[in-house]
Amino acid sequence: MSDNKIPRSSEDDYSPEILARRQDFIEEKTPARLHHTRQYSFEADVMSGNIENMFGAVQVPVGLAGPLLVDGEHAKGEFYVPMATVEGTMLASYNRGMKVIRESGGVKTTVCGEAMQRAPVFVCADARDARDFEQWLVAHFTEIKAVAEATTSIGKLLEIEHYIAHNMVFTRFDYSTGDAAGQNMTSKATFAACEWINQQYPRLSHYLLSGNFDTEKKTSSVNMLKGRGRRVTAEITIPRDVLINNLRITPQQMHYGQGISTLSSFLTNSSNNAAHPANGLAALYLATGQDIANIGESNQCSTYNKVTRDGDYYFSITLPSLIVATYGGGTALPTQRECLEIMDCFGVGKALKLAEIAAALTMAGELSLGAATRLDKDTRRNEWVDAHERLGRNR
Amino acid sequence: MSDNKIPRSSEDDYSPEILARRQDFIEEKTPARLHHTRQYSFEADVMSGNIENMFGAVQVPVGLAGPLLVDGEHAKGEFYVPMATVEGTMLASYNRGMKVIRESGGVKTTVCGEAMQRAPVFVCADARDARDFEQWLVAHFTEIKAVAEATTSIGKLLEIEHYIAHNMVFTRFDYSTGDAAGQNMTSKATFAACEWINQQYPRLSHYLLSGNFDTEKKTSSVNMLKGRGRRVTAEITIPRDVLINNLRITPQQMHYGQGISTLSSFLTNSSNNAAHPANGLAALYLATGQDIANIGESNQCSTYNKVTRDGDYYFSITLPSLIVATYGGGTALPTQRECLEIMDCFGVGKALKLAEIAAALTMAGELSLGAATRLDKDTRRNEWVDAHERLGRNR
Amino acid sequence: MSDNKIPRSSEDDYSPEILARRQDFIEEKTPARLHHTRQYSFEADVMSGNIENMFGAVQVPVGLAGPLLVDGEHAKGEFYVPMATVEGTMLASYNRGMKVIRESGGVKTTVCGEAMQRAPVFVCADARDARDFEQWLVAHFTEIKAVAEATTSIGKLLEIEHYIAHNMVFTRFDYSTGDAAGQNMTSKATFAACEWINQQYPRLSHYLLSGNFDTEKKTSSVNMLKGRGRRVTAEITIPRDVLINNLRITPQQMHYGQGISTLSSFLTNSSNNAAHPANGLAALYLATGQDIANIGESNQCSTYNKVTRDGDYYFSITLPSLIVATYGGGTALPTQRECLEIMDCFGVGKALKLAEIAAALTMAGELSLGAATRLDKDTRRNEWVDAHERLGRNR
Amino acid sequence: MSDNKIPRSSEDDYSPEILARRQDFIEEKTPARLHHTRQYSFEADVMSGNIENMFGAVQVPVGLAGPLLVDGEHAKGEFYVPMATVEGTMLASYNRGMKVIRESGGVKTTVCGEAMQRAPVFVCADARDARDFEQWLVAHFTEIKAVAEATTSIGKLLEIEHYIAHNMVFTRFDYSTGDAAGQNMTSKATFAACEWINQQYPRLSHYLLSGNFDTEKKTSSVNMLKGRGRRVTAEITIPRDVLINNLRITPQQMHYGQGISTLSSFLTNSSNNAAHPANGLAALYLATGQDIANIGESNQCSTYNKVTRDGDYYFSITLPSLIVATYGGGTALPTQRECLEIMDCFGVGKALKLAEIAAALTMAGELSLGAATRLDKDTRRNEWVDAHERLGRNR
Repeated sequence: MSDNKIPRSSEDDYSPEILARRQDFIEEKTPARLHHTRQYSFEADVMSGNIENMFGAVQVPVGLAGPLLVDGEHAKGEFYVPMATVEGTMLASYNRGMKVIRESGGVKTTVCGEAMQRAPVFVCADARDARDFEQWLVAHFTEIKAVAEATTSIGKLLEIEHYIAHNMVFTRFDYSTGDAAGQNMTSKATFAACEWINQQYPRLSHYLLSGNFDTEKKTSSVNMLKGRGRRVTAEITIPRDVLINNLRITPQQMHYGQGISTLSSFLTNSSNNAAHPANGLAALYLATGQDIANIGESNQCSTYNKVTRDGDYYFSITLPSLIVATYGGGTALPTQRECLEIMDCFGVGKALKLAEIAAALTMAGELSLGAATRLDKDTRRNEWVDAHERLGRNR
Repeated sequence: MSDNKIPRSSEDDYSPEILARRQDFIEEKTPARLHHTRQYSFEADVMSGNIENMFGAVQVPVGLAGPLLVDGEHAKGEFYVPMATVEGTMLASYNRGMKVIRESGGVKTTVCGEAMQRAPVFVCADARDARDFEQWLVAHFTEIKAVAEATTSIGKLLEIEHYIAHNMVFTRFDYSTGDAAGQNMTSKATFAACEWINQQYPRLSHYLLSGNFDTEKKTSSVNMLKGRGRRVTAEITIPRDVLINNLRITPQQMHYGQGISTLSSFLTNSSNNAAHPANGLAALYLATGQDIANIGESNQCSTYNKVTRDGDYYFSITLPSLIVATYGGGTALPTQRECLEIMDCFGVGKALKLAEIAAALTMAGELSLGAATRLDKDTRRNEWVDAHERLGRNR
Repeated sequence: MSDNKIPRSSEDDYSPEILARRQDFIEEKTPARLHHTRQYSFEADVMSGNIENMFGAVQVPVGLAGPLLVDGEHAKGEFYVPMATVEGTMLASYNRGMKVIRESGGVKTTVCGEAMQRAPVFVCADARDARDFEQWLVAHFTEIKAVAEATTSIGKLLEIEHYIAHNMVFTRFDYSTGDAAGQNMTSKATFAACEWINQQYPRLSHYLLSGNFDTEKKTSSVNMLKGRGRRVTAEITIPRDVLINNLRITPQQMHYGQGISTLSSFLTNSSNNAAHPANGLAALYLATGQDIANIGESNQCSTYNKVTRDGDYYFSITLPSLIVATYGGGTALPTQRECLEIMDCFGVGKALKLAEIAAALTMAGELSLGAATRLDKDTRRNEWVDAHERLGRNR
Repeated sequence: MSDNKIPRSSEDDYSPEILARRQDFIEEKTPARLHHTRQYSFEADVMSGNIENMFGAVQVPVGLAGPLLVDGEHAKGEFYVPMATVEGTMLASYNRGMKVIRESGGVKTTVCGEAMQRAPVFVCADARDARDFEQWLVAHFTEIKAVAEATTSIGKLLEIEHYIAHNMVFTRFDYSTGDAAGQNMTSKATFAACEWINQQYPRLSHYLLSGNFDTEKKTSSVNMLKGRGRRVTAEITIPRDVLINNLRITPQQMHYGQGISTLSSFLTNSSNNAAHPANGLAALYLATGQDIANIGESNQCSTYNKVTRDGDYYFSITLPSLIVATYGGGTALPTQRECLEIMDCFGVGKALKLAEIAAALTMAGELSLGAATRLDKDTRRNEWVDAHERLGRNR
């Protein structure tokens, strides 16, 4: 089987030579001819730390949406948003929502919470021991915090959530992580804390470093309630005329449609009662070097809306588990960094700004698709279908 | 505000000129300097239909994992899997799982269901009318099927799921869509069907083409139960020695850990009781031109495991909402097509094969991370933290 | 330990003698003095089949609410509803809702579905076998139906729901059960069907008669979607003036409050987005000899509401899992039967009528409490608290 | 319509005269003849505060199960448990479980948490105001606690849970309530607190006293995580032989069955992964004067089990939302009090004891039914069906 082994180099696994060998290997072993994938504009070794067994780069087209008028605390003013996608009509749809936002005076964004987790589970002899341990954990928060924070210059342990069931205490160690997504720094800090706990509390049977209560890469009720990454809310009041002129729908119709949509989400136990937060977030995440697997959890969302006393349309979305970074991970990679710089969101001190833009972007998508999926009674044509016909590939 | 408007061309919005104008616009309006993003190896107009307002391409490193030994009905033998990611250690982790799979004789994969949905909601005067309409809908399935299928050469209407509540009938039109993901063809077919229904059943108050019961781009109980895209199961029995030698964990320990992990998922109401299906799927989706926003729904998953009577470890995952395409969408884009060809998965007739590889890949990731997150008691080091330290960027 | 054994009689375990011996045993072994519990108005042996180890009866006060004006297909006109409860203010609250209903012309009720389940799970060698078995099951529905129905004169097998995951096919055998709740007849019929299947399909590994997919005595998404017992909807349009005059709240305020209540239910993943269906149902179930443990599942509910174009208030509730019987179980017991007769709901042919009354009763409770929990801004008193102070025991 | 009005008395609505008038009214207006319902052993006026419009009493047979061997911190030793039910075989089934418990040395019970809630939602102008208010709320906990506790001699405000979404702060005021269920004392205390908050924080737009986040009378994820009433765990290790001899099933078979049962609960999004906690709890609640509508929330439950290294069976259940009282409500009613006294659980200082007995009782039911629903391969008879045939009424 050795000739099936993917070539690796113990010296420099990102050198042109080893990449070429892997490309040759692929062309020899598989039907693929790597004409495009082997072309990229950077030195491969900038990718060390971001990927293993690299043999090339995938090129995803990126378009520009905007301007997106954001009335945030960290993001203020008009932003152009890079969106990388292969799905026709999507960017156009978000752009349409941004026009509505501009004509409404912008979308107000607020970061209301922060918590990146690791979630060890501590197993005790029985429920009484678990209860004792839970109380001990609460009493020793300060010391645990010190142990955890000694491993990182940035992460701060904000809280240890604790949930007791059976003979176990399920915890979530909640950190602030600065401008990095923080999954790694929190792993390291939590491991140190757990080892310290394990020494200090000998009656502990054992622990699992990751007990799945962080619900990483997945949606969950605990994330909806307590959050993960950043909790961000975007709000807007759209004047009646702006809504009708742009989206050909009244505030009452939007409200009615949202009511049914929310009912569906409740009946089906959906991860969000919105239309499609995952679309805009995925395009932004991809363009800016985020971990796109986080779409699995960051799409969680709730919406709220009403017709105001003045007859305008108030709409609000809350993303409880928005994970974005402007530092570390894939953010410094060549094209990704450039995309971040389009929004002046690269580097230290920019994560909250990016979080607000992400929420505002989500709002744009909800307004546009939310309106389009309702039937236009007069024209007897459905715009949503129509747009895909005109702009999208025939699929 | 006109000078803030992103340049567009009514003649050819993918010409080198208009792309250059957009690049200049970005450099003028924002701090970004587009050195890398403007470099790509293809003609921009191949992207028409996949994106609007294009100004360049994002380059994401892609690595090779494998061989992945698949015992499928559509995917048979060893496959090398392209994974595009910016998250260090992930590909290495999947590779480790693939080694376990190879030494266990491969992973058995089965496509157990197929259904791509559109979900119109039909609103009636009251619950009695809704009940009548529901019966009418069931009675007229054949005619509705004919109307819907007249709009597409590929899509077949398999079933109309119908759920009644209040004065509404929530439906899911379930289609087979061949090798395309099918969101667009199902929209068109369902719109035609709805208009026909609307004419034939005048007592209908009105309908919404998308009532959010498809739960597109989100996880849900209805998808868990009835599926969306393909429902694929991957199964493996890992000999005890293989497990211990590779992952330094016994079948009993794996089973124990899965039990706690499942309990956590139940207590937190998570979208899956696995470790991280979103990771591998996102990397594969990105490499192969899938809609990565679908990670929002395709991460849904259940796992099941047991220690066999022989003391080996049986592990199984079911992905009820796996959406993959080998035709249409982004699959024909230059680098994406090459990545599909690495697995001989490009074009017509390959979607089920890709679905099986995706499920097998998910299995590899679950085995590897599932084992790593348990504490190694002897060495008192945690491999999961360790790997990120060694291979991952410092975050 | 033998003197700790509860006295039993092998001859007649409901004779006055054995009951007296058990009463003596209790008074000897425990601090209790059974002055009241030993007093009841019936012959004990009427209880054989309903309870074991009987030593007396619990007396629960029962009050009368109404008239409840029902515009149903099975329940038409004004009904007086017996409610057995120990919770002060509750009956008064329901009565208040009934007044609103009367002044609005009644509540329209509709039975939209019926399905009492047993849920065997069939375990196969692997997923492919499970898929084969699932297809076999669908193909042999007629024969299975015949086998199941041979065990019962009343039950009809309507559908076999089937859900595949891993190497298992989870089923729900859906029956109509006439006027009995039907848990027992469906057990017997399904057992016969399973044994037949087991013989006919030898490749089956084994099956569990109850795989917990019926989600008996618990709420679940599958019950929300597919129903259990009866699915009943109650609807009403309350004229604006009637709402204000009776409940001191406007349609807009009610709609606003329901919106927040539904948002809470979505965020918390609640089993219903109503106020308290369990209250009225429990009181009715207790009075009429239903299995009160079914409150664990029958409280599942969704609500929908809107302000009509005329400014009135439309409100609707759907109970997807309402389990009620008018025959069998505890329905023929002396006081329970009398309570059923108050509504002319005893015996064969009355179950749908009782189901409609139950839904209408739930509506009354939702209207009353739904309004009361909103703050009355003018009087700065909270009626909900107030009522409990005045009518309820100080707790 | 006035002659349809249920007779009431402004002077004494529990006098023999008014009850007789109501009984006559019923017999005049409906087909019912109240022979039994009008017979009860107490003075009607003891029911004032527990019910309105009383016209009689429902008699429910009550049986004795036990002895139940409890190794609790509040309940120690053998208890006889009164169970009121109309469902044949149920008490016998629980009794069977109690035998297993006795032979295993008893069930260990632990009260791990306490929190009775009211859940006001505070509405602000926008998300920023909501965030400010949330911080203010945390900072003023001590003052709010004082205001709330001034209204009650028993209730203590333990915590104010706070969850922010959109422009709202959803709270749960968590109280300890002594030996009463506490729904009323917490209403009063929370109302006082809210009024104080409303005065102190004028920027608050308004609040709703009950925002449905307490999820009263319903199951929810927030209750699973944070609890409601008491959180109680019951644990047992059953020697292999005891399991086999009594329930004819091995530890491995039980573990296997629980695994599938839990998988079903996860796939269906059920409120518990147990067999039927609602059954035993409903029978106990009814016998002891609890609010039986609480079954709607108290049935929430998780189970955990494993085969020990010695080959025995460890089983554990956690009831996170167990609401029981030994004081107030219906606990002092004549028969209900006697039933409480059978367990020496009447009055002040007994609520935790009753909570432990309730959890131990639930354990008995899970063991018995959990085993019975698995197929007995040797005898090819299903005991569960069998028992209902023999003991239960033919339904």
